[in-house]
Amino acid sequence: MAQTSEHSIVRLAELEIDPAQVEAYKRALKEEIEASVRVEPGVLTLYAISVKEHPEQIRLFEEYRDAAAYQTHLQSAHFLKYKAETHAMIKSLRLLETDQILLSSKYR
Amino acid sequence: MAQTSEHSIVRLAELEIDPAQVEAYKRALKEEIEASVRVEPGVLTLYAISVKEHPEQIRLFEEYRDAAAYQTHLQSAHFLKYKAETHAMIKSLRLLETDQILLSSKYR
Repeated sequence: MAQTSEHSIVRLAELEIDPAQVEAYKRALKEEIEASVRVEPGVLTLYAISVKEHPEQIRLFEEYRDAAAYQTHLQSAHFLKYKAETHAMIKSLRLLETDQILLSSKYR
Repeated sequence: MAQTSEHSIVRLAELEIDPAQVEAYKRALKEEIEASVRVEPGVLTLYAISVKEHPEQIRLFEEYRDAAAYQTHLQSAHFLKYKAETHAMIKSLRLLETDQILLSSKYR
């Protein structure tokens, strides 16, 4: 448990979704997450949550093996499908690059 | 891989730290995270990152086994020590309850 991966990169996304399209957005997001983690060796973690009582406010915690793995992800068929499907559902999107302080988990 | 835990709870914290005290804050935070994940059965994940080029802007992704585990954590000696040590370093703190959409990871 409890180790920060030396070269992995962590990104955060903060999204606001059109309230009328939240359920459709979540379906597309779950499909994209499942495919990415299953198919791509370099996609380590994709955690998707919404703020309690604000289902339109979504946060993604994303960990990739390295920068190349992230670039590969951006070109994947499932990610491009997700982008095309959800483009008109997303009212705002903030992408944050991060520095790791400590990633500690019983799962690691 | 790739399962959302049925009963776990996820919380997010968004902090702004006094820039002059960021290094001291990160030391206290790392000590608290290491102790929590090592000692507490119900603390599943504590991920701490800072926004790139803004080391004073810190985000925590926290997963607990259930609501009782979170309450136990709040009463733990290491958490109370962290709170006492860091109280004067924190300029703002936003705690968010969340609903899980999907937690998928190669680590799980």
